[in-house]
Amino acid sequence: MDGSRIRGRVRIVGAGLLGASIGLALRSQGVDTIMHDVSPGALALAIDYGAGRAATPSDEPHLIIVAVPPDQTAAVVAQELAAFPRAIVTDVASVKALPLAELRAAGVDTTRYVGSHPLAGRERGGAISARADLFVGRPWVIATGNGESTEMVGLIEDLILDLDAVPVLMTAEEHDESVALVSHVPQVMASLLAKQLSNGTERALTLTGQGLRDTTRIAASDPHLWIQILAANSAPVVGILRALRDDLDGFIATLEHPTAPGAKKAIAESLSAGTAGVARLPGKHGQDRRFSQLVVMVDDKPGELARLLAEIGDAEVNLEDLRLEHSPGTLVGLAEISVLPEFEARLVSELESRGWRIAEAWK
Amino acid sequence: MDGSRIRGRVRIVGAGLLGASIGLALRSQGVDTIMHDVSPGALALAIDYGAGRAATPSDEPHLIIVAVPPDQTAAVVAQELAAFPRAIVTDVASVKALPLAELRAAGVDTTRYVGSHPLAGRERGGAISARADLFVGRPWVIATGNGESTEMVGLIEDLILDLDAVPVLMTAEEHDESVALVSHVPQVMASLLAKQLSNGTERALTLTGQGLRDTTRIAASDPHLWIQILAANSAPVVGILRALRDDLDGFIATLEHPTAPGAKKAIAESLSAGTAGVARLPGKHGQDRRFSQLVVMVDDKPGELARLLAEIGDAEVNLEDLRLEHSPGTLVGLAEISVLPEFEARLVSELESRGWRIAEAWK
Repeated sequence: MDGSRIRGRVRIVGAGLLGASIGLALRSQGVDTIMHDVSPGALALAIDYGAGRAATPSDEPHLIIVAVPPDQTAAVVAQELAAFPRAIVTDVASVKALPLAELRAAGVDTTRYVGSHPLAGRERGGAISARADLFVGRPWVIATGNGESTEMVGLIEDLILDLDAVPVLMTAEEHDESVALVSHVPQVMASLLAKQLSNGTERALTLTGQGLRDTTRIAASDPHLWIQILAANSAPVVGILRALRDDLDGFIATLEHPTAPGAKKAIAESLSAGTAGVARLPGKHGQDRRFSQLVVMVDDKPGELARLLAEIGDAEVNLEDLRLEHSPGTLVGLAEISVLPEFEARLVSELESRGWRIAEAWK
Repeated sequence: MDGSRIRGRVRIVGAGLLGASIGLALRSQGVDTIMHDVSPGALALAIDYGAGRAATPSDEPHLIIVAVPPDQTAAVVAQELAAFPRAIVTDVASVKALPLAELRAAGVDTTRYVGSHPLAGRERGGAISARADLFVGRPWVIATGNGESTEMVGLIEDLILDLDAVPVLMTAEEHDESVALVSHVPQVMASLLAKQLSNGTERALTLTGQGLRDTTRIAASDPHLWIQILAANSAPVVGILRALRDDLDGFIATLEHPTAPGAKKAIAESLSAGTAGVARLPGKHGQDRRFSQLVVMVDDKPGELARLLAEIGDAEVNLEDLRLEHSPGTLVGLAEISVLPEFEARLVSELESRGWRIAEAWK
């Protein structure tokens, strides 16, 4: 790509993970990017990190991106609209209906405001965790329904495409209901599940497997950010949590009498409903049915994995995904390799002819 | 290693994932391994797969491993004890108190029986998914408290060590309470969470991220096996589910009035309790604080990852873990590399001097 779609200066308010990552990405494309933060320390760090330059009095930004915590979003958007009367202003908060309602309640003219939300993040925050590729391939919602002009939506789309993300147009309400389901409720349930571990013995926790790790991983996220997100999107989250609670009540009632007539059928229906739900998720990584997976045993010493990958390269097969499982205390790792199905048979035969042990291959 | 610790014939009853995997591992060490299954088709597949040989009338097994579904375990153990009056019998069912109670209720002499449970498995079942390394590095509980002799425990320990697993001694009750917490309750919650996805729109699910994938992945497991496990361990599972339900009730009540006095503090306490719970898990993969992680950007073409790993090998740094993130539609992958902290600075400088882009490094 030669240059950015975005023309003109971009001002980013908030030098945290999202703001600094946007800055890094825009700067790498030559966009004149101004960083601002109420904290001089956070601002200096983000500038050192390459996320943008400091503001000067004569700056006239074309686009302003507000990347502050949800409970400050409306106030900062209002400030920026007032301070830069010709700029288009967007924000990247995880909730979309509340900031808009707060702006309207404060009597702010929102003609130049269009909210947005990149579905991207990590368990670590701050500019130090920023990366220019944070948004690559991720959905980025543009909140519609506020009378926004085609030109404004087009500008935000340019921003999103410059960052290699995928624009998705939704009303604020549809956005908030969607993220309640795919993000906020899973966060709550991971936390409540992880909380139960406090009651477990050390010996019980030695039996931990990947299932428990996966179901609780996001519970390690920053509580302060999530308090705000959950409070700001409480109605859709509560709605889904109530449905889940009712299902849990029913499950407990059934499991209290597991030999009663119909109990096993009821358990089966709950579990099968979960299987059906998970099957609806768009594919990725090891779960992705578009790829064939095979597992190669790799001696745990320097150079062995490199040799494997060199020989895969020699076979002119591209890896779609790779994960190394390294079981503690052992001398062997398992490289789980995903390739396009048409390459699988050839790769297996080439690797086996070179002495690699293939633990498994399936479609 | 030269040869197995196990001496004498081993008979495995049940040619599913666990039975066939045990057979593959024992055979690779030269143990005379007999496979048996009530299904001639399943047995033939496991034998073709290399998991063992068919039984002959003169076989006199030293150790019998019953690897059948939980609801058949007690009956099959009783049969095997009767058929082979000099053999030691173990099983590998996911619950330990119920099979023992069933044997006792049936008046079976359990002197030669000691239950066990490898904490290993996968979302796919059957001999076709078997692998000799399924148990490598995994805990394998030996259920104590049934008056078992030191020799019997030693024999099962030999089996576990031959399979490169880690013996853990627990009473049947402690085992069942432990797996309720670390395995059975997470399975139920993943299923109930995944079930809510059935109510989501296609557009909502396009916003899916890794958090939702991870929290629901195990919901794709086989419902038929899990019905039996949950029914057989209902009391400990119900106990934890009730505590979780009470926490969920409290969370819903709080989130219904998120601006009430104390509401944000209550939300914070729930989320922080989850963070504390997850911190208790023994480390592994990217969450492992014993390792330093760094993220290297890798062009998505054949040979690039191999070149990276070759150069890590040149630097004489051993990878503790590696994961490739490959964002759809992009030309760059991210290799997340875990190394011992003392190697991090040197590796970063060596890689950067060779032109690699390090997206991030933290402790």
